[in-house]
Amino acid sequence: MTILYIASGACSLAAHSLVHELGLPIQIESVALRTPDSPIHAINPLGRVPALQLDDGSVLTENSALLPYLADLRPEAGLFAPAGSVERARIQSWIGYLTSEVHVGGFRALNRPERYSADEGAHPGIRAQAGEQLHQALAHIEHHLNERKWLVGERYTIADAYLGVFAGWLPRLGERFADLARIACIGAAFRARPAVRKALATEGLL
Amino acid sequence: MTILYIASGACSLAAHSLVHELGLPIQIESVALRTPDSPIHAINPLGRVPALQLDDGSVLTENSALLPYLADLRPEAGLFAPAGSVERARIQSWIGYLTSEVHVGGFRALNRPERYSADEGAHPGIRAQAGEQLHQALAHIEHHLNERKWLVGERYTIADAYLGVFAGWLPRLGERFADLARIACIGAAFRARPAVRKALATEGLL
Ligand SMILES: N[C@@H](CCC(=O)N[C@@H](CS)C(=O)NCC(=O)O)C(=O)O
Ligand SMILES: N[C@@H](CCC(=O)N[C@@H](CS)C(=O)NCC(=O)O)C(=O)O
Repeated sequence: MTILYIASGACSLAAHSLVHELGLPIQIESVALRTPDSPIHAINPLGRVPALQLDDGSVLTENSALLPYLADLRPEAGLFAPAGSVERARIQSWIGYLTSEVHVGGFRALNRPERYSADEGAHPGIRAQAGEQLHQALAHIEHHLNERKWLVGERYTIADAYLGVFAGWLPRLGERFADLARIACIGAAFRARPAVRKALATEGLL
Repeated sequence: MTILYIASGACSLAAHSLVHELGLPIQIESVALRTPDSPIHAINPLGRVPALQLDDGSVLTENSALLPYLADLRPEAGLFAPAGSVERARIQSWIGYLTSEVHVGGFRALNRPERYSADEGAHPGIRAQAGEQLHQALAHIEHHLNERKWLVGERYTIADAYLGVFAGWLPRLGERFADLARIACIGAAFRARPAVRKALATEGLL
């Protein structure tokens, strides 16, 4: 049995939604994060989700690898593109941008300043600057969406699913991110998909 | 003409080495970074390398997309793996880990603390913590290399090229990273490859 380890409301929602979107025979296992006795530590020594345990017991991690891997199991669904195509490279590029510049470069510093300085007095300054960086990183995407409905081409892809997750994290950051209307649109379209609603229900978020 | 934009000593060395490794008809253009009048700003609005300008003038960015894209142009070279395979997912996973946790989560905070706080007084604390995070992130790789020569399987892949670049940045960080002997080995093997030596010579680093 293949098992996808997720946590409620975490970035694993993109992969979780794909399991339903593609009708994959993968079991969903919800775990606690940042909890020493969570079962995730036995699966992924980094203690992070998403983590995909394959039938042979080996584990795959990183959104930027899991989303492509899952999509390649059902190429006919058209959520990705053939190996060697420029379109595939563009989809992988937005995923790479989201995983590095948006998630780790933006959200993580905003939410976990303790990972960026042991000095608590520095945390408000780190949070402020992270908000700045995150807004800049997202403004680049917002600008790209100027003449497009989706990140790449005329259709929903795994890059939009990943962006949809981060879009869902923005409202709780307040007014500051309210100008990113096209990203908010992708977030709304993501959450309206039946597969995503199914995943949100499992995560206790509906 | 396809053009790869690089900067001497930057993370673009991995893609640069692949151009020689695979014998691709791609022109190399070296640019200055963090310089307002550098030609890179007209190519990539983020001002970053690597950036690949295709024949139609459109541009691809992000190491985690460029390395797979270039490798897929010459699948027979065996530096990557077929779409849908677990091996491909493992290679993409290490690339994703390097781009998010090692590059942005580690090196960037160490080298550019001003992107993590506007308060200069906080920079020594950010650098110290970034050194800690980077060491932890690399120790996870070092541990994985315990019983392996390369990151995935028995052969050199694009994930090793990417790791080879970061391994080359470690000596200047001093003794603290000297315990990562297996990563240093991959760095040495990377720099010994004829394709990498050709790239290093072009970058003025030989
Ligand atoms: N680079 C990883 C990051 C994964 C990640 O940071 N996941 C978060 C949830 S959004 C997590 O598991 N955090 C728990 C922790 O870091 O201890 C990826 O893209 O898969
Ligand atoms: N996430 C990007 C990061 C690229 C990146 O940060 N490149 C550095 C060189 S190692 C750069 O161009 N820095 C210039 C700048 O950020 O202004 C990728 O993996 O391609």
